[in-house]
Amino acid sequence: MKTLVFRGVGASPGIAIGKARILEQGKFEVIRQKIPAHSIEKEKTRFKEAVSRVENQLESLLQEISEELKDHAAIFKAHLMMLRDNMIYDRTLQLIEQEGINAEWALSKVLDWIKKVFAKIKDDFIRERFTDVEDVIKRVQMTLVGENLVKNLNFTEPSVLIANDLSPADTVQMNPELIMGFVTEKGSRTSHTAIVARSLGIPAVVGVEGILNHVLSDETVIVDGLCGELIITDDPVVLSRYREKQEAFSKYSLDIINTSHLPAETKDGFRVTIKANIEMIDEIPSVITYGAEGVGLLRTEFLYLSKKGLPKEEDLYSVYREMVERLNPYPVTIRTLDIGGDKFVSSVPLCEEMNPALGLRAIRLCLREPELFKTQLRAILRASAHGEVKILFPLISGKMEIIEAREILEEAKQELKQKNHPFDENIQVGIMIEVPTAVMMADVLAKEVDFFSIGTNDLIQYSLAIDRVNERVAHLYEPLHPAILRMLQKTVDAAHAHGIEVAVCGEMAGEPMYVPVLLGMGVDEFSMNAIVVPRIKKMIRGISQEKCKELFNELLEESTAIAIRRRLLKFLSDYYPEEFSPEKGLYCDLARTNSKLSTQNF
Amino acid sequence: MKTLVFRGVGASPGIAIGKARILEQGKFEVIRQKIPAHSIEKEKTRFKEAVSRVENQLESLLQEISEELKDHAAIFKAHLMMLRDNMIYDRTLQLIEQEGINAEWALSKVLDWIKKVFAKIKDDFIRERFTDVEDVIKRVQMTLVGENLVKNLNFTEPSVLIANDLSPADTVQMNPELIMGFVTEKGSRTSHTAIVARSLGIPAVVGVEGILNHVLSDETVIVDGLCGELIITDDPVVLSRYREKQEAFSKYSLDIINTSHLPAETKDGFRVTIKANIEMIDEIPSVITYGAEGVGLLRTEFLYLSKKGLPKEEDLYSVYREMVERLNPYPVTIRTLDIGGDKFVSSVPLCEEMNPALGLRAIRLCLREPELFKTQLRAILRASAHGEVKILFPLISGKMEIIEAREILEEAKQELKQKNHPFDENIQVGIMIEVPTAVMMADVLAKEVDFFSIGTNDLIQYSLAIDRVNERVAHLYEPLHPAILRMLQKTVDAAHAHGIEVAVCGEMAGEPMYVPVLLGMGVDEFSMNAIVVPRIKKMIRGISQEKCKELFNELLEESTAIAIRRRLLKFLSDYYPEEFSPEKGLYCDLARTNSKLSTQNF
Repeated sequence: MKTLVFRGVGASPGIAIGKARILEQGKFEVIRQKIPAHSIEKEKTRFKEAVSRVENQLESLLQEISEELKDHAAIFKAHLMMLRDNMIYDRTLQLIEQEGINAEWALSKVLDWIKKVFAKIKDDFIRERFTDVEDVIKRVQMTLVGENLVKNLNFTEPSVLIANDLSPADTVQMNPELIMGFVTEKGSRTSHTAIVARSLGIPAVVGVEGILNHVLSDETVIVDGLCGELIITDDPVVLSRYREKQEAFSKYSLDIINTSHLPAETKDGFRVTIKANIEMIDEIPSVITYGAEGVGLLRTEFLYLSKKGLPKEEDLYSVYREMVERLNPYPVTIRTLDIGGDKFVSSVPLCEEMNPALGLRAIRLCLREPELFKTQLRAILRASAHGEVKILFPLISGKMEIIEAREILEEAKQELKQKNHPFDENIQVGIMIEVPTAVMMADVLAKEVDFFSIGTNDLIQYSLAIDRVNERVAHLYEPLHPAILRMLQKTVDAAHAHGIEVAVCGEMAGEPMYVPVLLGMGVDEFSMNAIVVPRIKKMIRGISQEKCKELFNELLEESTAIAIRRRLLKFLSDYYPEEFSPEKGLYCDLARTNSKLSTQNF
Repeated sequence: MKTLVFRGVGASPGIAIGKARILEQGKFEVIRQKIPAHSIEKEKTRFKEAVSRVENQLESLLQEISEELKDHAAIFKAHLMMLRDNMIYDRTLQLIEQEGINAEWALSKVLDWIKKVFAKIKDDFIRERFTDVEDVIKRVQMTLVGENLVKNLNFTEPSVLIANDLSPADTVQMNPELIMGFVTEKGSRTSHTAIVARSLGIPAVVGVEGILNHVLSDETVIVDGLCGELIITDDPVVLSRYREKQEAFSKYSLDIINTSHLPAETKDGFRVTIKANIEMIDEIPSVITYGAEGVGLLRTEFLYLSKKGLPKEEDLYSVYREMVERLNPYPVTIRTLDIGGDKFVSSVPLCEEMNPALGLRAIRLCLREPELFKTQLRAILRASAHGEVKILFPLISGKMEIIEAREILEEAKQELKQKNHPFDENIQVGIMIEVPTAVMMADVLAKEVDFFSIGTNDLIQYSLAIDRVNERVAHLYEPLHPAILRMLQKTVDAAHAHGIEVAVCGEMAGEPMYVPVLLGMGVDEFSMNAIVVPRIKKMIRGISQEKCKELFNELLEESTAIAIRRRLLKFLSDYYPEEFSPEKGLYCDLARTNSKLSTQNF
């Protein structure tokens, strides 16, 4: 009996126990499969058929190419010939047979070998022809993997999906009902897979490096999204422990769901507003089900990403209106276009940038493209006639941007008046606090707007000069950095001194462990993924703000994140034993704390 | 008579008047040249010869390729054949003849056309074969441009060099004595060309978009590095005005040079230390000539970039020692390796990062590669036996990094003791303040180190979430942003409250207009390119700190950069009329303020 424990990052809470399914992907993180002796011939045939299929594709493409390209037929024909090179063709068949491995993997080995041969070549031009060989081989691999991909995605029994990484396209194709858990080699708490998993309520562990080299299809695995671990085991003792934990967590989850309609009020009567961050119309039911009191952050990028050409005012208006009407009487805070950088708008030409996170994006792009901006503002304003709407400007770095954005908003209002479109004349305008200079100027900016919404993800990223999607520095991303706590405090204090409210809409607001921190600094509104609303509400109801203020003042005395984290964990364990006690809390680490288990850590 | 004025960024002060020379580059910003009718045949021959040369190269490469690659000869042969395709070969000859353009440009047009044809192809695989065509064409272009490059770089009379951009490699090959001025389409005040121009004392204007489409070789141009303009003119009135300005600037420059040995002391007796930022040994004479009192920032990256393999302790030690000895009795502040991000170390494998400025670099990389770090620290320590040395850690974001870096420094000291290598036991240790969180924690960090050195470039970049090398947001890079002034003030105050000194070693310190600002906030040391030392010293001597403090307090009352800039310019014009008076200051804009001139702005 063996139990292997792999550590990653808990990206979505819960326990999933089931058979592993490996997703091979278009990115060719091709993995190794053992082919049993009796299937070797079948695998070889599979490879030969894939080659024939690619040949047919290429040949029919050759027929289709335009007259102007006929001159270059030679080069395409050379590619065709390459498929039958013994360097590729014979060697792959040999490897399948000798090593008993799958065709994709054999091709990867061939490719590695060819790569080494080419790497020795001094001339750049010839060396770069390697990409031609690579393209041909990958085309065959794609054909091979393509079959598997389809097979994988059409699996019929509930499984734990294990992949190198999941793209938005991958997740769209999946039937969430058959997926019990997600595990990926890449990613962090803020990556796409993590966000999808949380919104679907499926346990997930991300950032489990090298897991695809260890796990086999159909092995029993345990995804512990609470502790951030993947466990491969055939030990009934371990399995039964995790079944107990699964049950305890279900009970706990049921409890928080049952109390999710209660207000988020601390024991000493501090009332916090809890809202949801959403993007799509179909997320609206969950906002209400989970007990959120409106939408604190409506991301508006998807209408710009999913269509060809820029959306028209009417298109935007009809979507915003539907959202506002369906959420009525709850308010909806609509963040204006936060695009550029890593996101891509096909209609607005954006050249490549070296540091997109520090580039032309969000309000900067909107102020440079005033028509694009005004179209959206008119749509938002018109939606405000159908329920309470607030406008939120992203990436504000100083007062001038607010002045300029407000001027454009004013123009939008005038244009609507001329056309007799009704809108809320007193619509509230707020800004995201996510650029360090905005924190430094919070006292000045508070006079210019009706509310602040702190985007902790970007604020932490810029303040620490860390790209949170870069795995090589992700460990430095630290919400509990003493400077971050000071910046949050400075922002909250400046807002309150000027009589405006502060929301937190970054990941920090939806993270249970930070609840006492945000309560302690006096944040008025938390906005998060709807799925975590019940849990955050329960945590808020379980504590007094007075205690949190004491805690927060203690944290501010510490000069390192490590010390702050230690104090916070002690507090959590004292006041929330069910969740955080190191012995029996749901968020402890069962496999690891039981010394009888053989564990292997990576 | 015509006078065209193109606006860019003044990157190095002074006026240059001379003939334009266009630099065509390996990056294939191939430019258009008119070929006179009588030279068309010569140009065609030049093209044919280039093709033959490329054929010969490819054929001899084919002979050399290893046995293992012989299988793929077909693909290389296809490339060879392509050179004679009428699509490429005949069409290029046709274009040279019909349009009277140079061969490189004709090839670019052919390439553009082929690109369009390929773009229509639906199949990815075939479409991507465009890169094969592109490679072949570029290989020919490289051969053609190569000749010109040599021709250009070997020009014999003093000229104004105009290029799309200049790489470090380009500038190394140049004879600075024949270059009167630099003009580039790309770049900002902080880009490579700007830095080189300033260190060579050559007037330069960068970021002049599209200039290569307007200027012709041998036209008379005026580079006004003071106002950031390139003027193309054949008007003797304009030329004579600029000759006057040139003379006035020479006189002014001579004056500041003659007084450069005087101390940098304000009228009311505030003594500032002025040091130089350097990288190479051959910059040392200029440090002393220009009156700097030591080196405030010794960049240590070049030893890591210029060699294959990591430098050994002895290599580093011998360079540091020579620098320290030659600068004795002046102190040298050595910044430890600030690499990663946009810089590249061939020996430390760095994968590609999406946002390198926010990635694994500087102290982060060093703490992850302690042996790399310790080797450098031992070399620095050993150099401290030969003169006053201070250690400066870059990119510090909080206290933990200082603790970890100091631990490694301690190990380095112990190792040297064991080997009986002498070093300064009390060597001072400082940190760069360039990450926003370091500013927030300045009071805590001041207790941990002996001095601060503010890296304004990075600090501004991160604080405003702007990539300063990204031209699309470069206009948002603003040292006078009120938040930046507050951050600088906060840093200086925290340092002084704990009895340590603050240097500014970013571009701000070497920029005359910011002198009163830095004096006003009480910065103790300015470190800059040696070339600007005399001018900054003269500015410091020309004012009282009291006045600057008043100014700074006024600036802090403003809430926008625009208002701050306006106030500062008024101050500069009042107290430094020779330089900044709008009517007669050297930094005014002659062509533009004279309404009789026809000007065209871009």
